[in-house]
Amino acid sequence: MGSQNLLLLPGDGIGPEIMVEVKKVIAWFNAKGGMAFETDEGLVGGSAYDAHGQSISEEDMAKAMAADAVIFGAVGGPKWDNVAYEVRPEAGLLRLRKDMELFANLRPAICYPALADASSLKKDIIEGLDILIVRELTGGVYFGEPKEITDLGNGQKRGVDTQVYDTYEIERISKVAFELARTRNNKVTSMEKRNVMKSGVLWNEVVTQTHKNGFEDVTLEHMLADAGGMQLVRWPKQFDVIVTDNLFGDMLSDVAAMLTGSLGMLPSASLGAPDAKTGKRKALYEPVHGSAPDIAGTGAANPIAMIASFGMALRYSFEEVAAADLLDKAIANALDKGLRTKDIAAEGEATVPTAEMGDAIVAEL
Amino acid sequence: MGSQNLLLLPGDGIGPEIMVEVKKVIAWFNAKGGMAFETDEGLVGGSAYDAHGQSISEEDMAKAMAADAVIFGAVGGPKWDNVAYEVRPEAGLLRLRKDMELFANLRPAICYPALADASSLKKDIIEGLDILIVRELTGGVYFGEPKEITDLGNGQKRGVDTQVYDTYEIERISKVAFELARTRNNKVTSMEKRNVMKSGVLWNEVVTQTHKNGFEDVTLEHMLADAGGMQLVRWPKQFDVIVTDNLFGDMLSDVAAMLTGSLGMLPSASLGAPDAKTGKRKALYEPVHGSAPDIAGTGAANPIAMIASFGMALRYSFEEVAAADLLDKAIANALDKGLRTKDIAAEGEATVPTAEMGDAIVAEL
Ligand SMILES: CC(C)[C@H](C(=O)O)[C@@H](O)C(=O)O
Ligand SMILES: CC(C)[C@H](C(=O)O)[C@@H](O)C(=O)O
Repeated sequence: MGSQNLLLLPGDGIGPEIMVEVKKVIAWFNAKGGMAFETDEGLVGGSAYDAHGQSISEEDMAKAMAADAVIFGAVGGPKWDNVAYEVRPEAGLLRLRKDMELFANLRPAICYPALADASSLKKDIIEGLDILIVRELTGGVYFGEPKEITDLGNGQKRGVDTQVYDTYEIERISKVAFELARTRNNKVTSMEKRNVMKSGVLWNEVVTQTHKNGFEDVTLEHMLADAGGMQLVRWPKQFDVIVTDNLFGDMLSDVAAMLTGSLGMLPSASLGAPDAKTGKRKALYEPVHGSAPDIAGTGAANPIAMIASFGMALRYSFEEVAAADLLDKAIANALDKGLRTKDIAAEGEATVPTAEMGDAIVAEL
Repeated sequence: MGSQNLLLLPGDGIGPEIMVEVKKVIAWFNAKGGMAFETDEGLVGGSAYDAHGQSISEEDMAKAMAADAVIFGAVGGPKWDNVAYEVRPEAGLLRLRKDMELFANLRPAICYPALADASSLKKDIIEGLDILIVRELTGGVYFGEPKEITDLGNGQKRGVDTQVYDTYEIERISKVAFELARTRNNKVTSMEKRNVMKSGVLWNEVVTQTHKNGFEDVTLEHMLADAGGMQLVRWPKQFDVIVTDNLFGDMLSDVAAMLTGSLGMLPSASLGAPDAKTGKRKALYEPVHGSAPDIAGTGAANPIAMIASFGMALRYSFEEVAAADLLDKAIANALDKGLRTKDIAAEGEATVPTAEMGDAIVAEL
C-alpha cells in the first residue's frame, strides 16, 4: 500500500479527546511499516463555527473530497443551540455526507462478550449479537425540498420537510445490503412504513425488484419500521443485515446500538459509489455515539468506537483486513483484561480514563 | 350516566376474537346497572374491503362520527398486501383518525408487576415502569401533501411524502401533554429531530412557548428523537410523559410498548378536541398491538390490551373513573392468579386461550 491521506475532523465535545487516541493507533501502524498514513486535520461543527462562522470551511471540504478517508469525531452541543439553522454544527456533517455522496452508512451493532452484562437487556437476548444496519445516508427527509418554516400570519407558522426517494437511490443501497449479507449470514430485512408512506411503497417495490435481479441467493424479508423497532428490542438476533432509509436508519441504529450496551464501542462507515476510474470509494468513518458535551474534558469518554472506526477504514478503504483484524483483537484483549471506561463499567467496577484505554489498546497491538 | 353509544370496529386478524371478550365486559357493566352502553358494530380494514371494496364504508364512518366512543380492534394482514394503496386496510384507520380529528394519541407503557419477567430487559430496568407517550395523530408525514409516486421515465420513479406541522397543531398536543403530566409526575419530554428537520425546529419552538404560557409548573425537557429511542432502552424510568410527532410517536411508542414485555397488554386512546357546545371529545380506543394475522383463530391472542382500551374509554370518554379502576384491578387480579396467554407466559408456564382470559377478567369484576 502506498501512502494514504487521512483527514481527521475531531469536531466538538469529546471528539478531540477521542481523536487523540486514534492518532496513537495511526502512529503505531506507521511505525510498524507496511502502511504509510499521512494525516491532516480540520475543523467541523461548532468548533468550525467558532473559528470562522461556518460548520465546515470550503478549504476543509476540499480536503475531505481529496482525502483517501475522512476520520470524523462528533459534532454538536448546547453551546450552539441558538446559532442559525444553516450553520448549526450538524450542517457540517450533513454537507460532508451529501457532497461526498456517502450514500451507504454501515452501522454494525455487536455485543462484545466482555460487555454482555453492561446492557439493559437480558444476557441471553444480546450475547453474541452481531447485526449490521445499512442506512441510506444522502436522501430522504434529511435533504428533500421544500424544507422550510413559513409564516402564515396570525401567529401561525408552518414547518415542512420532504421525504424523497428515487428508484436509483433505493437500488444502490439495497445492492450494498445484499452484497454485505453474502459475507455474513445471507439475510436482509428491509424496513419502511409502506402502510403510510408512498416512499415506503416505492422502497419496498425497488428492494424486491433488486433482489430478483441477481440476489435471490440472499434471504429477503420486509418489515414495517415500527414493528422492526419492536423486534429489535424483543429478539434482535433474528436479524443479520437491516436495510432502511435515512430517518428510520437514524432511529433504528441508535436503538440497536443501545441494545448491545456498547454504545461507546460502535463504529460506523459511510461509503460512496466506487469511482469509475480508480474503483475507490469516498469514505468517512465515525463513531455511532455523539459529542457527549456533558462529559467532555473529564476523561470519561470511551475512545473505542473512534478507534474501531479507524479499523473500519483499514477494512473498507485500504483493504488491510489483517491490520483491521489485529486492531479489533487488540480492543477485545484490552476489554478481556478488564479495562473499562465509565460507560461500560458494571456497578462497582474500576474504570480507566480515555488516554489509558487508548494506550492499552496500542500496547495490545 | 345516560345511555352511551359505542361503535365496535373489530377489524382484521385477531381483532374480532379480542372484541368478543370486550363485549363480555360491556355486558357485565350493563348488567350491573348505573351505566348503559348501546353497541353497534361495523367493518374496517381488510374485512371492510372484502365486503364492499372500501377500507371503511360511508355508513360506518357516519356511525363513528356520531358515536360516543369507537372501540377499535386492529387492521391489516398479508391477504391485502396487494390491494390499491387508497383502499388498503390501514386507510380505514387513518380516515377515522383524520375525519374524527383525533389529534391526541395517548399510549401508556406500563410494566405490570406480574409480568416484569416477560420483558427482554432486565427486571430492575423496567419494574414499576409507567410512562405515557402522547403522540400527535392527525398531522406530520402521515397526511402531508404531496404524497405520491411519480414516473420519471427511464425506469425511474420518485416517491414523495411531506411532513407538515402548523403552530396550532403543536400547541394543542403539547397542552394535552402538560395537562396529563400534572396528573402524573409533572414532567414532559418533547422529542423531535430539530438538528435535521425544520418541522422539528418549529416543534421545539412551539412546545417551549406553550410551556411558558401557563405550564411552567411542569418540568420540560427536550431530546432528539434518536437519542430518545436510545434512552428508552437504556433507562426508561427517566421519563414521565413523552410528547412527539406522528411518525416518531409511532416508532417510539412501539419500542416503549415492547420494553414492558407487555405488548399484548397495552391500550391506547385517541382523542379529539372538546366540542364547543357539549365539551365532549370524539374518541377512539384501540390496543397498541396489531392484527397479528399469524395467530388469528388459534386462541393465542391476548384480549387484555383490547379490554384495557375499553377501560380507557370508561376513564376518558365517560368519566367513570371508579369503573375504570375496577376493570384495571380485575385485569391485575387475573394476572396475579397466574393466568397467562401465550405472549406473556414465561418459559414452561401454563397458558390459557383468549376466551378463558376474558372470562377470568369478568369473573374478577
Ligand atoms: C448529528 C446528526 C445530524 C446525525 C443524524 O441525524 O444523521 C446523527 O444522529 C447520526 O446518526 O449520525
Ligand atoms: C396501522 C398503522 C397505520 C398505524 C400507524 O402507523 O399509525 C399503527 O402502526 C399504529 O401505531 O397505530
